[in-house]
Amino acid sequence: MNDLTHVDAEGRLRMVDVSAKPVTERRAVARGIVRMRPETLRAIRERRTPKGDPLEAARLAGILAAKRTAELIPLCHPLPLTHVDVEVELTEEGITLTASAATTAQTGVEMEALVAVSIAALTLYDMCKAIDREMTITDIRLERKTGGRSGDYVREESR
Amino acid sequence: MNDLTHVDAEGRLRMVDVSAKPVTERRAVARGIVRMRPETLRAIRERRTPKGDPLEAARLAGILAAKRTAELIPLCHPLPLTHVDVEVELTEEGITLTASAATTAQTGVEMEALVAVSIAALTLYDMCKAIDREMTITDIRLERKTGGRSGDYVREESR
Amino acid sequence: MNDLTHVDAEGRLRMVDVSAKPVTERRAVARGIVRMRPETLRAIRERRTPKGDPLEAARLAGILAAKRTAELIPLCHPLPLTHVDVEVELTEEGITLTASAATTAQTGVEMEALVAVSIAALTLYDMCKAIDREMTITDIRLERKTGGRSGDYVREESR
Amino acid sequence: MNDLTHVDAEGRLRMVDVSAKPVTERRAVARGIVRMRPETLRAIRERRTPKGDPLEAARLAGILAAKRTAELIPLCHPLPLTHVDVEVELTEEGITLTASAATTAQTGVEMEALVAVSIAALTLYDMCKAIDREMTITDIRLERKTGGRSGDYVREESR
Amino acid sequence: MNDLTHVDAEGRLRMVDVSAKPVTERRAVARGIVRMRPETLRAIRERRTPKGDPLEAARLAGILAAKRTAELIPLCHPLPLTHVDVEVELTEEGITLTASAATTAQTGVEMEALVAVSIAALTLYDMCKAIDREMTITDIRLERKTGGRSGDYVREESR
Amino acid sequence: MNDLTHVDAEGRLRMVDVSAKPVTERRAVARGIVRMRPETLRAIRERRTPKGDPLEAARLAGILAAKRTAELIPLCHPLPLTHVDVEVELTEEGITLTASAATTAQTGVEMEALVAVSIAALTLYDMCKAIDREMTITDIRLERKTGGRSGDYVREESR
Repeated sequence: MNDLTHVDAEGRLRMVDVSAKPVTERRAVARGIVRMRPETLRAIRERRTPKGDPLEAARLAGILAAKRTAELIPLCHPLPLTHVDVEVELTEEGITLTASAATTAQTGVEMEALVAVSIAALTLYDMCKAIDREMTITDIRLERKTGGRSGDYVREESR
Repeated sequence: MNDLTHVDAEGRLRMVDVSAKPVTERRAVARGIVRMRPETLRAIRERRTPKGDPLEAARLAGILAAKRTAELIPLCHPLPLTHVDVEVELTEEGITLTASAATTAQTGVEMEALVAVSIAALTLYDMCKAIDREMTITDIRLERKTGGRSGDYVREESR
Repeated sequence: MNDLTHVDAEGRLRMVDVSAKPVTERRAVARGIVRMRPETLRAIRERRTPKGDPLEAARLAGILAAKRTAELIPLCHPLPLTHVDVEVELTEEGITLTASAATTAQTGVEMEALVAVSIAALTLYDMCKAIDREMTITDIRLERKTGGRSGDYVREESR
Repeated sequence: MNDLTHVDAEGRLRMVDVSAKPVTERRAVARGIVRMRPETLRAIRERRTPKGDPLEAARLAGILAAKRTAELIPLCHPLPLTHVDVEVELTEEGITLTASAATTAQTGVEMEALVAVSIAALTLYDMCKAIDREMTITDIRLERKTGGRSGDYVREESR
Repeated sequence: MNDLTHVDAEGRLRMVDVSAKPVTERRAVARGIVRMRPETLRAIRERRTPKGDPLEAARLAGILAAKRTAELIPLCHPLPLTHVDVEVELTEEGITLTASAATTAQTGVEMEALVAVSIAALTLYDMCKAIDREMTITDIRLERKTGGRSGDYVREESR
Repeated sequence: MNDLTHVDAEGRLRMVDVSAKPVTERRAVARGIVRMRPETLRAIRERRTPKGDPLEAARLAGILAAKRTAELIPLCHPLPLTHVDVEVELTEEGITLTASAATTAQTGVEMEALVAVSIAALTLYDMCKAIDREMTITDIRLERKTGGRSGDYVREESR
């Protein structure tokens, strides 16, 4: 029953045909972490002034990228997103990014949430790389999704 | 000495002005891992037929995305890339992606290599998510870079 | 009652979640003016030959840009536009651009109409800048909109 | 009865207003041929190894481009594609590309299918041009379409 | 001497051929104003918290759009930008946006600066439109440019 | 000596590394034909009024697309184009499109010229498809190229 949905019977890559699937509301949440040295984290924290905030740049970049998921991921369908958000949380080991995406469509928004997390993380990397080239982007994963025929999903360790 | 290059004296985000920097050849290598269940890895391996290969789709998506780095990462400069490559290696724990990028320009290509790794990884995720939603994209990091005033860099654990 | 819809309770920027809003037909009209010297206006008028027309280039650029509004304006939703048009009118003081946009969706098309006007105006500027660098793009504003919960709107001085 | 739908009564280019058209399922199939020397065709055939396949690159490029049709063709509407596919067939005279596209929308997907064929063909050209600059892309045409008020269409010589 | 550089001898639109022009450092500064009601301005001012700032979103959107000028303005050349910045200033009548752009290339960056101002202004409009639909974007113009054969330019009223 | 430059020794697709190639001025010319019924050709001819011209829309679409070649063709390098032009000629059998592209770079502009022809042809198709679905885009090919190590090329039948 292992079925790579994007590879057809002859092995050719293919986009799933969702024409016959029902239109339902769909949501997905993804998460990732940018690990960095304590000094880097402190620098970000201290430069958060009323006139600017590296974290907001990362959030906006993630939101913008989510809207372009179908241009970046070859076999994704273009979707009319009704919402995208990226939340950032500063922890001891770095910055946790949580993205959520929503649509009313024939297929899900997991990839949109994952793209938002990834590009937000890369934007943080870009903005801090002059002081810390050792940063690592890690643990990018789907946390949960709702809507669609395959039912709801909550990642085990998140339950 | 901690200097977030993208945040100016008043805290406003800014693009670095590279107008006065010399044009030199610059290269960067980045890496990342898509961790997955053994069954998923096996499915990918077996579906690699002469008519199609999920790994090539991921590689192409990474190359294409690298060329659009400046559209995705707000404070990156547009660069005339002279080369991008993404290599994939199947290991016991998943798929390791290694991207390299090159340019002859006034600033480096770290972000291009990191974007290529990230989008290639997300493409693999997309193509396997129907059989394995638990996959994790992890350890995305810069391995080395050459060229530019700040000198060459090799990540410590990669030396 | 002052409520910046794109800034949430904690001040973080956010995209409005329109998932629960009804799908209705929505239209918007925006307007703007490119002011220029009489000689510039005359040059445009005289070069309007059967083989080419700077005004059509501006119109097409505006239509194309409207379709990319969600890529340009960070917190806009991607919308399935059903119509975009840009009209140009030559007056004594310059060129008046009027853009209209339509969709059947959960949110409005004001930004699409405004983007169409702005990029059409910039295209005119680009095509005439070699003879007139003093041109000014001005009075870009929403004229009216219909559809959606907040009701119809007609700009006061346009009523 | 000759009516260029994209040119209005005064001759100005215009996008068709599809706001009042019904939402129906629509499909289109387009085809094209890349003619090449027998040696070129042989080279492609022999390099089709489990690690890579020029034909899959062309297919992916066509699928990706179809999703961006409204950015490339000025008067096209953005459409929520539910499926795109590009099939390749090696014949004696070259490579035949057949693209199909589907949507549930107020207007058809002919252009999406034609864009997919064209960009897939150009990708093949790009990948083989070092050994054969004489290749020709030819016979790009609509084969059939279904859905929409104007009824189904099947190209005469394809019936 | 009136010469519309983008319209050729037969009236057809054309891109200027800059192949033979020398590569020089070029800079341009453009400006524009978003006029709004005092209450709107106050709302923006008060919501500028350490966790977010509508003005930074506008600045980032302007920087990102400048990098895509050649995609938006049909006859512009793609340029390797070395710097883009957008400054915002709150005055009594609204928000003044000043964008600067730089490159080392065969043609100038006026359009990049003007696009940055325009998209930053539209982003502000988008973020405040729920409380003030009467805002007007006005006085978008080139302030100065340096580099290139045609010499430096400073707008008269800015000298 | 048959060498598919985009497929490496192991068969994996690859972008050619042009880092070590010299920067030279490069030009390319490509051509294609849109075949159509005489009535369609006549309709285009007659609608060519001072207020609009379908042929100019096709030319602009081709120029815009040429600038995005590296986004569309996976293994193409991004190039700083110094010129793009698309000429149209009405003949008895349809419309001949001739595109030329130029750059000063480490690799050639054949693909840019071919993309310009293809998208211009598709734009014509789009604008006339309501009156003639039988149109065929044909004979897209490289006519000549200059610059670069491999020397100049002129297509045999064009000499």
